[in-house]
Order: sequence, then C-alpha cells, then structure tokens
Amino acid sequence: MAATLKDVAMKAGVSTSAVSRTFTDGASVSDKMRRKVQKAAAELGYSPNFLARSLTTRRTKLIGLVSNNFHNPIFLEVFDLFTRGLQDRGLRPLLVNLSNETDPEHSVQMLHQYSVDGVIVASSTLPPAFSKAFRDKRIPVVNTFGRYSSSPEVHVVGIDNAEAGRMAARELIERGYKHVAFLGGPEAATSTQDRLKGFLEELAKCPTVKVSHSFAEQYSFQAGRTEMLRLGQGELAEVYFCGDDVLSIGVLSAIKDLGLRVPDDIGVIGFNDMEMSSWENIALTTIHQPIKQIINSSVELMAAMLDEPDRYPEARLFPCQMVERNTLRPRR
Amino acid sequence: MAATLKDVAMKAGVSTSAVSRTFTDGASVSDKMRRKVQKAAAELGYSPNFLARSLTTRRTKLIGLVSNNFHNPIFLEVFDLFTRGLQDRGLRPLLVNLSNETDPEHSVQMLHQYSVDGVIVASSTLPPAFSKAFRDKRIPVVNTFGRYSSSPEVHVVGIDNAEAGRMAARELIERGYKHVAFLGGPEAATSTQDRLKGFLEELAKCPTVKVSHSFAEQYSFQAGRTEMLRLGQGELAEVYFCGDDVLSIGVLSAIKDLGLRVPDDIGVIGFNDMEMSSWENIALTTIHQPIKQIINSSVELMAAMLDEPDRYPEARLFPCQMVERNTLRPRR
Repeated sequence: MAATLKDVAMKAGVSTSAVSRTFTDGASVSDKMRRKVQKAAAELGYSPNFLARSLTTRRTKLIGLVSNNFHNPIFLEVFDLFTRGLQDRGLRPLLVNLSNETDPEHSVQMLHQYSVDGVIVASSTLPPAFSKAFRDKRIPVVNTFGRYSSSPEVHVVGIDNAEAGRMAARELIERGYKHVAFLGGPEAATSTQDRLKGFLEELAKCPTVKVSHSFAEQYSFQAGRTEMLRLGQGELAEVYFCGDDVLSIGVLSAIKDLGLRVPDDIGVIGFNDMEMSSWENIALTTIHQPIKQIINSSVELMAAMLDEPDRYPEARLFPCQMVERNTLRPRR
Repeated sequence: MAATLKDVAMKAGVSTSAVSRTFTDGASVSDKMRRKVQKAAAELGYSPNFLARSLTTRRTKLIGLVSNNFHNPIFLEVFDLFTRGLQDRGLRPLLVNLSNETDPEHSVQMLHQYSVDGVIVASSTLPPAFSKAFRDKRIPVVNTFGRYSSSPEVHVVGIDNAEAGRMAARELIERGYKHVAFLGGPEAATSTQDRLKGFLEELAKCPTVKVSHSFAEQYSFQAGRTEMLRLGQGELAEVYFCGDDVLSIGVLSAIKDLGLRVPDDIGVIGFNDMEMSSWENIALTTIHQPIKQIINSSVELMAAMLDEPDRYPEARLFPCQMVERNTLRPRR
C-alpha cells in the first residue's frame, strides 16, 4: 500500500500536523523539520494526497468541464486548449459528457458531490438555465460559447453572435448576392438564434435581396447534408451562410451530389474556422471564431473566480474575422 | 456554505456514523434511521461528498484518461465513448493531455496525488514504458490501442496491428497492384511499426510486387500531405497504405495537387474508419478498427481491475474489417 501522512510522521518522529504543514504552500514549518519530513517522505515514496488535503483547504483543484456535442470536430481544439490551459494552472479537468443527458440537475448534483472548485460549461446549445443551476449552488461557473447578454447572470466568454450574423450578411451583400439563405444549427441553440437575428437585421437594410432560412437538426455533417439535399428539391438560394463549419462541409457534399459547382453555381460560408476547414481539399470560406483567445480567457476567469467566488458577472467578447478560401464568389 | 454530514446528524438527532452509513451502498442501517437521515439531508440540501468518503473507502471513482494527440479526429469518438462508458459505471474521467509533456514521471506523480482508482492510457504513440510506470506504482492501468504482446506486462485492449498490416497487403495484392507503399505515422509509434511489419511480411510472399515505405512526422493531415508532396517529387507507387485515416486525407489532398486522380491514377487505403472517412466528399476506403468494442472492453476491464487489482495481465484483441469506398481500384 502507498505510504500515508501518518507513516511519514512516524518515520520522521514528528507530528502529522508537521508533515501536513511541510506539504502545504505557505504554511509555517522550520527548515530542520522540513528536512526531516522530506527525507522520511522520500524514503517511503510518499506524495501528498491532494484530495485528502482538500478537506482542510476546501480546494480540490478539480474543474468540471461540461459539454454535449463531442462529435463536432471543433471540440478537438476545445478539449486540447482547455486541458492544457487548466493543467498550466495546476487545475484538473473532470470531463462530463451530456450527449445523452436530459436532466441537468443530475450533473449539478454529481459535480457537487465531487466538490469541484468550479465548472466550465463549454456549449452554445445547452440552455442558459443549465449554467445558472451551478451558480445557484454557489459553484463558480463560466459559460464558454454562451449567450451574450448586457446583464449576464453568469460569466460568459465568447463572441457576439448577432454581430457575427451581421458580419456574414454584409459580406454576402458586398459580393452582390441577390438571394441569400441561413442554414442554421438546431433552432433551440442560442448561437443559431442570435446569428440568424443579426443576419436578418442587416439584410433588412437591403430590401432588394431575397432572404430565406431553415435549420439543421444538430451541428453535424449529416444534419447539414440532409438539410441541403432537402432544400435541393425546391428553389435554391445563391449562397448559404451555415450555422457552423461541420454543417457547411455536409452542405458542400450535398451540393456536389446535386450536380452543382462551388462557388460558380452556389456559394457557401461557414462559421468557426475549425482546423479541417483549412484542409486543402475542403478550403471553406468561413468566419473565424477566436477559440484560442476565448478558451484562454475562460481559464483565466475561472482561476480568478476561485480567489473571488462572488465576482460580479461579466461578459467577455472577442471579435470574429472573415477567412477567405474557395467557397464564395470574389468581392465585386 | 454547503451542509455537512455533521449538520445532517445534528438535525436528524443521530450519530455522524449513521448518516455515513445511510449514504454508503450496502452499509447496514435501519429503515427508520434511513428515513430520518434522508429527511434531514433533503431539508438541508445535503449531498454526500464522494471525495471525503474516499478517505474511508479508499475509492475516489476517478479514472485518469491520458492521451497525447488531441488533434487527431479519431479522438472525438474516443473521448465520447470513454466518458459515456465511465459515467455509466459511476466512474469519472480526469482528462490528462500529454501533447506537450516530455516527462511521464510527472503524470504518474500527478495522478497518484489525485488518488485516481485507475488510469486508461489511450494512445498508440506513447512508449510502452509509460503504462508500466503506473503499474509500478500499483495503480491499475489499461493501455487502450497499446501494443499486443504474447506476454503483456500491462493490460492491453486493441487490435493486432501486425495482422492489420497483413490484411492491407492481401487486399492490395488481390487488386493486382504491382508497386505498393506504406506511408506510416511516426516511426516511433508501435502501431506504425507493427502495421509495417505485417505489411512487409505478407508482401514478402509476392516477390514480383515492388514495395516501398516511408513515415510521416505524426498522425495528422498536414504530416500526410507534406510526406505525399515530397514523394511526388520522385517515382510514385501505384497505391499507398497510410498509417491512419487523418494521414490518408492529407495524402488525398496532396494527390489532387499533384494533378492525379484517385483511384484511377493512384490508390489510397486508410486505417481506423473514423467518422469523417465516411463523409461523402471524402469516401476513403479504409480498414475499420472496432473503436467502440475496444473502448467498451477497456472500461469493462478497468471496472474489473478495481475489484481485483492484482488481476493477471491480459491482451484483448478485436478483429478489423475492410470498408470499401472510393479510393482503391476494384478487386479483380
């Protein structure tokens, strides 16, 4: 069995409290005592148990990392950046997959039982009430990719999705498209709702441009492909602003099956700029969401909340940028 | 502050031990006592602290989930299946990202400090010594996608990579290719070493077929693309067996840039059958690695080890299957 704090205390001939203080940052212990304890610990192969210690410090350094769409390729970057960012600060991600979960209360209960120091909800499709449930339990929470509100109830880090929708609309207008469409993600996702809202607002300024919209069932390749094949049965728009990149790639595959060429016959613009959108055989024109900045800022905010749990809620927003590749006609 | 076990005991007018027994599976407590405790707990909003309890049970239900290539799209499926499988058994994944880590001892130390009940190393590119370091610390470990050995030192769940290489070779011979090549992942990865070994073994039986091989720097799109563009400067083989699917997609993109058509001018066969290989605009012919079975079995094995830590090490192997799509010429 692994050596315990007690074993070290006995071997060193000191109190357990002295051992505990030796391994606690900033605790008072004489150099002589520290050396004795460290020698005994090394001989026994003892290393302090973070979780046992957490009962005293009330800090586990565990952060719940909650998401619900593990099949969207954007999550490769999201998990990579979050795990590295948290590790760099000595925090540990406890991964929670809500793909099949219908009861948010269950996750709140579970993370509470594990005494997580905080929770990062990385999702634009979970309802805002989900993040609030953690706040109500007094668990520090950051909703990454959450909905921007001018009076946020929980900390939100992400983008202004309505502005992103306006940006897409301006881009399509500038390129002279006369019939434009939004092919969104799930209708219930705040990201899709807000991107559509901004898109329609901006296009309302150009009454000569025809606008339509529809929704895919989820942010996925097959959902985008299915919706585009369905649209292909009727009159098509000249260009589609898709809810995200993985939807866009499904749309591109459907357009090929419909016998049309991109961008000559029909245009596509995505959203996110995930890694594979830059792959040369995809080359999707898209709007870059600054994932790296968003995630680094989320981790920084979480770390700040651990020191100041009652921190006044804020919304941290980052600007998006057009990324020109091969799926839109040139600007006029 | 959250209610504690002591608060519940005081409110219910019972001992703290009675409260503890009420919330421990299988512990003896009278129905009357249980009702009293549950009523007090509900009124105080108390839920048991798993980590505090772990000091008595010596079980944290935390499982370290360790990997080092978060950018390979296969990990979307890997993380999804692992988190769901562990959650279904009441276990919790503590995610560890070794992308930038050079010292395995550091991870062993860290997971030891968190008193994880076990560790799943999900990687075919980390050296086998890495998994053994956990075993040496008496932490139950499963190496998913690890190297098959007839005398395994740690539990391994995956495939027989040498047999997979032989399978690819037989497939290419049957289709009448006369110059075949292996474009592997990193030369140090056991998966690449073993697939190459089997591939060469099988082809040694057909001395009329010309064979060559080379390695990409990692299992990634850009590494596959770069290596194929380099090969395009010299004499090309008729077909490339690639180390995995993401490499293959990079290879397909390079072939397009070289002005060649797949499968008419040149063939490509991948490995894994990750989700996006079935996307209609990729349609990669590949060998299916039964990821779902491998991961479910890894979780099952881990759960069994928690009850029987000294379980005799075993290798669980699952057969692979050809998946015909559009990147090889037809069988003769």
